[in-house]
Amino acid sequence: MTNLKPPDEEFENRVRSSFDRQQVMKTIGAEMTHVSPGEVHIDLPYSEALTQQHGYLHAGIVTIIVDSACGYAAYTLMPVFSEVLTVEFKVNFLAPARGERFIAIGNVIKPGRTLTVCCGKVLAVSNGEEKLIATIQATMMAVTN
Amino acid sequence: MTNLKPPDEEFENRVRSSFDRQQVMKTIGAEMTHVSPGEVHIDLPYSEALTQQHGYLHAGIVTIIVDSACGYAAYTLMPVFSEVLTVEFKVNFLAPARGERFIAIGNVIKPGRTLTVCCGKVLAVSNGEEKLIATIQATMMAVTN
Amino acid sequence: MTNLKPPDEEFENRVRSSFDRQQVMKTIGAEMTHVSPGEVHIDLPYSEALTQQHGYLHAGIVTIIVDSACGYAAYTLMPVFSEVLTVEFKVNFLAPARGERFIAIGNVIKPGRTLTVCCGKVLAVSNGEEKLIATIQATMMAVTN
Amino acid sequence: MTNLKPPDEEFENRVRSSFDRQQVMKTIGAEMTHVSPGEVHIDLPYSEALTQQHGYLHAGIVTIIVDSACGYAAYTLMPVFSEVLTVEFKVNFLAPARGERFIAIGNVIKPGRTLTVCCGKVLAVSNGEEKLIATIQATMMAVTN
Repeated sequence: MTNLKPPDEEFENRVRSSFDRQQVMKTIGAEMTHVSPGEVHIDLPYSEALTQQHGYLHAGIVTIIVDSACGYAAYTLMPVFSEVLTVEFKVNFLAPARGERFIAIGNVIKPGRTLTVCCGKVLAVSNGEEKLIATIQATMMAVTN
Repeated sequence: MTNLKPPDEEFENRVRSSFDRQQVMKTIGAEMTHVSPGEVHIDLPYSEALTQQHGYLHAGIVTIIVDSACGYAAYTLMPVFSEVLTVEFKVNFLAPARGERFIAIGNVIKPGRTLTVCCGKVLAVSNGEEKLIATIQATMMAVTN
Repeated sequence: MTNLKPPDEEFENRVRSSFDRQQVMKTIGAEMTHVSPGEVHIDLPYSEALTQQHGYLHAGIVTIIVDSACGYAAYTLMPVFSEVLTVEFKVNFLAPARGERFIAIGNVIKPGRTLTVCCGKVLAVSNGEEKLIATIQATMMAVTN
Repeated sequence: MTNLKPPDEEFENRVRSSFDRQQVMKTIGAEMTHVSPGEVHIDLPYSEALTQQHGYLHAGIVTIIVDSACGYAAYTLMPVFSEVLTVEFKVNFLAPARGERFIAIGNVIKPGRTLTVCCGKVLAVSNGEEKLIATIQATMMAVTN
């Protein structure tokens, strides 16, 4: 989508400082690698501490990074004095989360004053090759303080 | 739902031993507190290490426990030589994940040879009071080895 | 859920008159058979005009009645001068929509000032026996005029 | 997605003949306007008979065409002796379904032997302008006869 104009020029600072307050991101080792109007990327290296019973990344961990990528993508377009909340999401898992690292990409499909609809995906990276492993469709809400 | 009969009498051992192999459950501190045919409970104490920017449990962590509760509820009804995978889920977040601990409950709605449909919920417990904070509808798949 | 108190005493009239303005309900032959605070039932007789390629009710028709049952369940709890809109829904289809008639039941899980979360189900009735064929989880929005 | 190769060369005939057996498509006046490997378009003119209480197309009718576009997009890649069923879908409604006609586009994200994951969208056309009004994420299943 083009022409997504943030109402807040300082959107990147606002997004990054909110992300930095998410303790869970430090706990799992996720990093925010890209912030632009309506799009955010989050990177996560593989860690055995985050695996399910077959040694792959747990579906819930895949969800954490792509939910946050979508939430912050929505947040780039929200006003200065607002917070972002996840209303709901739906995730399809397309392949086992096997890889050295994982890239979650969140995009705004439709911004709104109250609700913003996003889509996103997660890529697993192995030996420099990317594989699509999950897609998300999510609704985010702006809460004004 | 009644009359959910596991084809494998040793279903509880199988479910618990699979859960014990999920490293992510140790990492976040989750425990399996109930296993019966078509129903599983998972308990998670609050931890600052798992929070989002407002100090509540991150939506993705809420999702981890309720996805696993549903997956293992489905797994109670699957045959001995099978594994369970999450095909997809949809979660609605009803209230902030604020509480001392969290109880995820997964239930089978419709078992199937290949696909099993589940629903589940997460309760936040504060001062002995339970509050519904999330609901899930999920599709699980049996994979035979 | 208990203790769902409609802010508008005339909620049933308001719900039924909105339903009566849905032309699509006349087109498919659906009827509203129950309205109580936070719960609505819609009934649809089988018709060949509404079938998919195998002669069963089309998944989209199943969705119409259960979406409306949920939307109107939410609407029972909304204020007088409001309208209800579907924000999003997720439907799982559990069995072919085979039957003489179909009963959609919508329930409010969590009412809210702006957003109301509902769940619902569709039963197929054949020879007096009911079978669960679909479940929905949906988000509805109150729009004030 | 590129390189989606149908295992059945006659995929278009198979898809179109299945669509022609969907009575509901005749009832609502929908037409299949495009069939290629992994992508199907369905067109629906506005009709008052299909409206909700505000005179817009009912969310469930929007769903019928985009569910079918996704189902048939999946079906283009399925083997000769198979049928396609909708396992589940999730639809976000982005704007009222206001327009002279509606175009549903279904795309395969990830084909599979049993399950195929699709995404899709619905555009409303007014005075030659297209507006995105809904997005879907869906799971389809191949059933072999």
